[in-house]
Amino acid sequence: MQRLANVEDHARRILTPMNERTAFFLSDQTGVTAETLGHSLLVQFDGQNFRQVTLPFIDTEDKAREAVKKINAASAEDELRPIVFSTLVQPECRQILKESQGLHLDIFDVFLDPLEVELEQTPAHASGRAHGMSDIDAYMKRIEATNFALANDDGGISRNYEMADVILVGVSRSGKTPTCLYLALQYGVYAANYPLTEEDFESGQLPDFLKEHKHKLFGLTITPDRLRQIRKERRPVGKYSSAQQVRYELRESAKLFKKFGIPYVDTTEFSIEEISSRILDSTGVDRRVRP
Amino acid sequence: MQRLANVEDHARRILTPMNERTAFFLSDQTGVTAETLGHSLLVQFDGQNFRQVTLPFIDTEDKAREAVKKINAASAEDELRPIVFSTLVQPECRQILKESQGLHLDIFDVFLDPLEVELEQTPAHASGRAHGMSDIDAYMKRIEATNFALANDDGGISRNYEMADVILVGVSRSGKTPTCLYLALQYGVYAANYPLTEEDFESGQLPDFLKEHKHKLFGLTITPDRLRQIRKERRPVGKYSSAQQVRYELRESAKLFKKFGIPYVDTTEFSIEEISSRILDSTGVDRRVRP
Repeated sequence: MQRLANVEDHARRILTPMNERTAFFLSDQTGVTAETLGHSLLVQFDGQNFRQVTLPFIDTEDKAREAVKKINAASAEDELRPIVFSTLVQPECRQILKESQGLHLDIFDVFLDPLEVELEQTPAHASGRAHGMSDIDAYMKRIEATNFALANDDGGISRNYEMADVILVGVSRSGKTPTCLYLALQYGVYAANYPLTEEDFESGQLPDFLKEHKHKLFGLTITPDRLRQIRKERRPVGKYSSAQQVRYELRESAKLFKKFGIPYVDTTEFSIEEISSRILDSTGVDRRVRP
Repeated sequence: MQRLANVEDHARRILTPMNERTAFFLSDQTGVTAETLGHSLLVQFDGQNFRQVTLPFIDTEDKAREAVKKINAASAEDELRPIVFSTLVQPECRQILKESQGLHLDIFDVFLDPLEVELEQTPAHASGRAHGMSDIDAYMKRIEATNFALANDDGGISRNYEMADVILVGVSRSGKTPTCLYLALQYGVYAANYPLTEEDFESGQLPDFLKEHKHKLFGLTITPDRLRQIRKERRPVGKYSSAQQVRYELRESAKLFKKFGIPYVDTTEFSIEEISSRILDSTGVDRRVRP
């Protein structure tokens, strides 16, 4: 009987697609830290598929026990041990989680002790940050930077370029708007953007209001194929996404970057985070807030 | 002599402000993971001041040696051992960093081994993610979601509410716009927003185009004091930021949330990340992409 069961079990495993393993991201806060931590580790294992589940705001022992139930249910369903990335501050909650059937990887478990020794201070073990004035200040800075990005998007009405930390220039759909918004929301950086147009290309000049702030300019470029692909999503036919037009605009924008000594980054292979980090790294613009 | 030196040293320490310790965030990528990881740990130690330095894109041994120099320089200057949070994939770079004078806390050092055992697979040790089609797909989704948020901001022109994952409602300056943009950029979620107006309050009704999508509505509220503070930044005087007006709007919006059974969150004490996470958690809206 045992033998037969094993054969059946084996057959079933061959016939059904490979089980997906579940990766949990647990936190007493938003889960963003656990997600980014976990993701950077999981991508090191090619070809594995993970069903990703975020369980945020686990700040009581009851919620920790609920999470354990979900982990154990996934373990039974997947027939594979779940991976659990967690950033739980409270030792009691961590202790409960350790009894789950998942592989439990917690940053506080590992890193709090060496920090305690180094800083000669007992950690607060407080769930979440203290929401004091510094947080309100950070919130306001991010909101104001976002408003600035919106008002100074796409050559915008405001053109408060004297307030800008950086002014992104590039052709339409090279990634300027999302990058400006990301810089604002994530870092409170004041980022304006200006789309290079046919007029600029024909004159081989930048508008005077940009030249005044030449040291703040940063260029975005992209490969012609990728730009066509992006533009076609917006307008499938016509000059805007034609191979000729796209090549012309990119060639001319490269000339302007060179002529005016504007540093630039090719956004083709990069995520919005990567583009943003490269801009901060290259320009030396300070983060006004930190995540 | 020794005694005297100690006294002088002691006096100098009393007279000069406490040295700031430097916290480094090192990465072969953007540094966002190292920053969020490090920040969540450092806030557990109240009263310590850290000068925060991000060193991204350390993807060669030369760059790792450069980083070591910066860490050692900070150590000498601060007269305090720097804390180094890192997410370096390449073992060679990690090895070089270990020779710095900082306290080196690396997530790959700690978590890669247990994952290798559990997944029965050697990690790629590849710097950065493979930039395959999945990344381009994620990029496009985030861009499209951002465009959606911009087109459907503040009651927007488009009102593509049938495409929305969630529609935020609340009074002016309750946090709708940055939250929608964050949901789009971070998670590719389609978030529209609609500002509740005097007309809605007077009629005690929601516009028909919102009622049709009642199950997608999510409310934002805020305390009167905080709202006044935020509104005053925009318009220091007048009805818009008056105590009476702010209390009236918040009271009436609360009535509408109750009448139409709209779930809501008080944004007063929360960061944009927290508001976003609570919305996803409460509505069950799926992340279209993951950071």
